[in-house]
Amino acid sequence: MNIKDVAKMAGVSISTISRVINNSAYVSPDIRERIEKVLADTGYRPNSLAKELLSHKTNTLGVMLPRIDLGTFSAIFDGISAVVTANGYNIILANTYDRKEEELHYLDLFHAKRVDGILYFATGIDDDHKRAISKLRMPVVIVGQSGIQLECPAVRVDNFGAARTMVNHLADLGHRRIGCIAVGDHDENIGKLRREGYRAALEDSGISYDPELVVTGDFEYPSGKKGAEKLMEDAEKRPTAIYCITDRLAIGAIAWLTTHGYKVPEDISVACVDDPEVLAYCNPPITTMSFDYTGTGNRAGKLMVDIINGKEAGPLEVVMPYTMRIRDSVRPLTAREQEE
Amino acid sequence: MNIKDVAKMAGVSISTISRVINNSAYVSPDIRERIEKVLADTGYRPNSLAKELLSHKTNTLGVMLPRIDLGTFSAIFDGISAVVTANGYNIILANTYDRKEEELHYLDLFHAKRVDGILYFATGIDDDHKRAISKLRMPVVIVGQSGIQLECPAVRVDNFGAARTMVNHLADLGHRRIGCIAVGDHDENIGKLRREGYRAALEDSGISYDPELVVTGDFEYPSGKKGAEKLMEDAEKRPTAIYCITDRLAIGAIAWLTTHGYKVPEDISVACVDDPEVLAYCNPPITTMSFDYTGTGNRAGKLMVDIINGKEAGPLEVVMPYTMRIRDSVRPLTAREQEE
Repeated sequence: MNIKDVAKMAGVSISTISRVINNSAYVSPDIRERIEKVLADTGYRPNSLAKELLSHKTNTLGVMLPRIDLGTFSAIFDGISAVVTANGYNIILANTYDRKEEELHYLDLFHAKRVDGILYFATGIDDDHKRAISKLRMPVVIVGQSGIQLECPAVRVDNFGAARTMVNHLADLGHRRIGCIAVGDHDENIGKLRREGYRAALEDSGISYDPELVVTGDFEYPSGKKGAEKLMEDAEKRPTAIYCITDRLAIGAIAWLTTHGYKVPEDISVACVDDPEVLAYCNPPITTMSFDYTGTGNRAGKLMVDIINGKEAGPLEVVMPYTMRIRDSVRPLTAREQEE
Repeated sequence: MNIKDVAKMAGVSISTISRVINNSAYVSPDIRERIEKVLADTGYRPNSLAKELLSHKTNTLGVMLPRIDLGTFSAIFDGISAVVTANGYNIILANTYDRKEEELHYLDLFHAKRVDGILYFATGIDDDHKRAISKLRMPVVIVGQSGIQLECPAVRVDNFGAARTMVNHLADLGHRRIGCIAVGDHDENIGKLRREGYRAALEDSGISYDPELVVTGDFEYPSGKKGAEKLMEDAEKRPTAIYCITDRLAIGAIAWLTTHGYKVPEDISVACVDDPEVLAYCNPPITTMSFDYTGTGNRAGKLMVDIINGKEAGPLEVVMPYTMRIRDSVRPLTAREQEE
């Protein structure tokens, strides 16, 4: 089955099919419908079409993300942009505000605009997303979370591993009562995996899980403040260290602790996951796990370019490594403190 | 002069002209050239064309900015994106890394893709930019700086006014030796205008300008550290307050001061311009001037949509207001200190 067969079956010329596929010029609705039907019936694959119609590539990629104004997403986007631009691609950016209807709208739009591929920062995936993506005749690379559900190649950071390593680090320094300021499980990457990493580390270190040491809020600074306040409420049950699921929560927690007379790390240690540059300039500088988000974007962009050029095929999952940044917000417990 | 006249002069049909303007289908090079010439000779305006050829709108806007991974730009972009998306437009994003050749490349690309308009975050404008923009047959809105040079409508924040107001605030609190951590003048919006605001405020307050109190670095945190170190070097000539041209410089300066035994604001006051959310959670929370960047983006997006729809015409300059955020990093000098 090649494009000539498709043209024959639809009773039109190859260039008309090309027009429909590339949406490059007017084609009457009935002819368009007839061609779409043949494409659907034959299951003719867009990848091979893309190769045959190479000159009709749009050299445009769709990038869909939930919030461009969050540092993590903008850094990954920046990494993608550098690589795909260097390879001659332009980007249509879909800033979806984490709204599902926007995501579905943009998947349609990318299809209509015949982008050459889609980089999709998925946060929560359901059946509607799966249906929409399975209909697309173009490569899709998932960014920031596993692609297994969607049967797509993916590039992501290791949220679970980073969280587990950080909490094990606190345990290695003698901390047994380790508080956790978390966010809800509806967020797959951070809410769920970074909390699971905390639980796994407790298990690794033989510490029993105490739900009273876990406070759940949202992603914003005030949640860090509230979390610290809650954890410090009962003098008997206070943690000696607080693990915060994100940098903002750690900054918020330290702000509350400092204004309420607690010194970090003398009175209590605070650590987190994620490393925007500001953490190194906080007072005190904050111990955290660092992900190379720009590198993650570079890798995702390269994977997409390789897939389009037939050099790489999915499913494939690339998991980017993390680095621990030891700064001044954590101290080891003394032997005496450990006995208390 | 309407599209029919243009078609007549070029000796082609209206739909051929539409094809050329929208780049929507193949037109032979000579005919294309002939049409381009008539368009150039008659100075026929793309805005009116856009109206006549409404069905050929691409519903795509080009947005060009220097660095999507900086909070300021991503917040403005977010504001643009919300408004234009709600009006049915998609965005091709050009992340230019502040490189002129990328900017010129994207201006060409936007032209080739027949975007309906361009939102351009200009940082430094020269003759090449002017030439490229004057050739475009589509509306251009300048974001973040004046559009006068390019004769384009613009939406910007008031960098000069915000800087001047902040430094006058320090002077009103009794500070006479006000240090300044700045960046180079090659950056028009921040480097130049926020430094000019400082000088204007000194003049307002009858303080003579002392070049030894001004340290120039770059936009990164370490420049803030170095700036503070330099200003504190000579015990005789130290400032009582430091005005930092950006939030990062203030955070860097406070990090240096704190680790070298100076308390902020007891020993020295620090203030800045720009208000990422983290400033309210720093230790101490930092006094600054706040711009509504999302609102600035909303306004720019709305202006573009209005221009395309013929409801608004340039040149027009919208200057967005600022708000002072008084926090804990600045204190008034006592009467005795003022006499010293």
